[in-house]
Amino acid sequence: MMRTPQRTVLAGLPDTVTIYEVGPRDGLQNESAIIGVDVKAAFIHRLSDAGLTNIELTSFVPPSWVPQLADAEELVALLGPLAGRHPVLVPNERGLDRALASGVREIAVFASATESFAQRNLNKSVADSLEGFALVVRRALDAGLAVRGYVSMCFGDPWEGDVAVSKVTAVATELAAMGCDEVSLGDTIGVATPGQVVEVLNDLENHGLARSRLAVHFHDTYGQGLANTLVALQHGVTTIDASAGGLGGCPYAKSATGNLATEDLVWQLHGLGVATGVDLEALCRTSLWMAGVLGRPSPSRTLKALAGSIAN
Amino acid sequence: MMRTPQRTVLAGLPDTVTIYEVGPRDGLQNESAIIGVDVKAAFIHRLSDAGLTNIELTSFVPPSWVPQLADAEELVALLGPLAGRHPVLVPNERGLDRALASGVREIAVFASATESFAQRNLNKSVADSLEGFALVVRRALDAGLAVRGYVSMCFGDPWEGDVAVSKVTAVATELAAMGCDEVSLGDTIGVATPGQVVEVLNDLENHGLARSRLAVHFHDTYGQGLANTLVALQHGVTTIDASAGGLGGCPYAKSATGNLATEDLVWQLHGLGVATGVDLEALCRTSLWMAGVLGRPSPSRTLKALAGSIAN
Repeated sequence: MMRTPQRTVLAGLPDTVTIYEVGPRDGLQNESAIIGVDVKAAFIHRLSDAGLTNIELTSFVPPSWVPQLADAEELVALLGPLAGRHPVLVPNERGLDRALASGVREIAVFASATESFAQRNLNKSVADSLEGFALVVRRALDAGLAVRGYVSMCFGDPWEGDVAVSKVTAVATELAAMGCDEVSLGDTIGVATPGQVVEVLNDLENHGLARSRLAVHFHDTYGQGLANTLVALQHGVTTIDASAGGLGGCPYAKSATGNLATEDLVWQLHGLGVATGVDLEALCRTSLWMAGVLGRPSPSRTLKALAGSIAN
Repeated sequence: MMRTPQRTVLAGLPDTVTIYEVGPRDGLQNESAIIGVDVKAAFIHRLSDAGLTNIELTSFVPPSWVPQLADAEELVALLGPLAGRHPVLVPNERGLDRALASGVREIAVFASATESFAQRNLNKSVADSLEGFALVVRRALDAGLAVRGYVSMCFGDPWEGDVAVSKVTAVATELAAMGCDEVSLGDTIGVATPGQVVEVLNDLENHGLARSRLAVHFHDTYGQGLANTLVALQHGVTTIDASAGGLGGCPYAKSATGNLATEDLVWQLHGLGVATGVDLEALCRTSLWMAGVLGRPSPSRTLKALAGSIAN
């Protein structure tokens, strides 16, 4: 039988947390071997069956940017209706057109707190990218869609080093002002420690951005993901991004960039008595299956610890 | 140049933390291939040079129990005088005799919160093991030695499942009463979540055990080590056990039992503005060297992330 965490409530935490699952998009986008659309659809259905209600499906970026996600239309059509929130990433108006034509109900736009990453990821300045996203968000809202906004590199940048809190706040508040109902703060290279997280959350609150509109998106590159999650929970954040099996980036690359593993997050939350709606065993089974598809072990520590006791 | 964490203080944490390095003992004891005593001595000297002042050297258990540490006398003699605290593990009076003959100034005894682990690790009941340790501690104190006490399985047991807080408190307070100046609370199988840590710390305080006499010893089996460390810091603990490179147990075994990696801990503490006295780059260089000796990569995430930028 699979071990489950001992449940001991920690005062001051929320009763319920929403896990925003990014594995199918953020996790798979860096895979070089193209994965079949049927496998992606099965992955999403299995995650949904495991109780994850918020799953980012794919990205409507140009196929030349991310060949792995070139099947976005096909995937959305194949999935059919799903209960919950299922955004797709959209980089520009062309991407929005494709998303609208596919019938999705929610999109996500992705800005950067730093100029270096904005140039590399979007080939634009931060200001120009926000101007472009304002048009996309306006049109999406007019079409009745919900919009999530990402801010990358909130806690450190590979080229610029430290990142000033004011830059994060400027971008996050602008995304909120243009109509993003949720803003996700990304530690894209996984360097943050808990003091930085609290400082950013406090600065955003001082600038009028309510905790209920914020999500956090941690990577575990330096092993800090769950400690950062804990302080975010202690400061009122109730939406946490995570990736099934820790998919994302290559764990064997020089600078690993793995997302926080959903299994590690669920172990923490259930241990703390925080409800997630997730069936940890079904989630582990799904991630073990995906690790088999990808042909390498998952970096999730909880998954590794539990793998031997999970029925296939 | 090696990246360093952005420093942002989190209110309510200590200014300084003592890292209690267990790599040479807890880390190496499970290695099946015998490591040369000169390599062990070099490891300890390099850790000391990297600024670690508290290093557990070895164990005076019977060589038949842990063949890897059968060279305890030889190692202590080879090391010569070191600045700081350098305890050795002692299981019984015979071990104490050996430790005293070697001229060590501090020992550590190791009790279990659970009967199952006491039987397997010491072949005694919890009560019998504490009776035996009381004699050892009395003789050590009479000889002018300092004594640390470990409590294993404080937050979960592989055979018994959940562990009642009262069992942890009973053993920890008894170790303190017999004269251990520091009691280290071990999450031997790495299952704890932060609510459990706070619950145990609070119960110990209610039973008169001051935070200043406590240390925490987390394993990262389920990825929870640093989140648990953070709440321990928030609740006044200032001594944290860790293992250079995350040595300990086998990261590829069915149930990985790796200690919290010292590098991951140092990244967190320095990011939080907490002083440790440790030179992270020198520590990483040491752990990379040891990974080469052992012939497998370290499970430390911070070490993996920094490895490419560290000069040999």
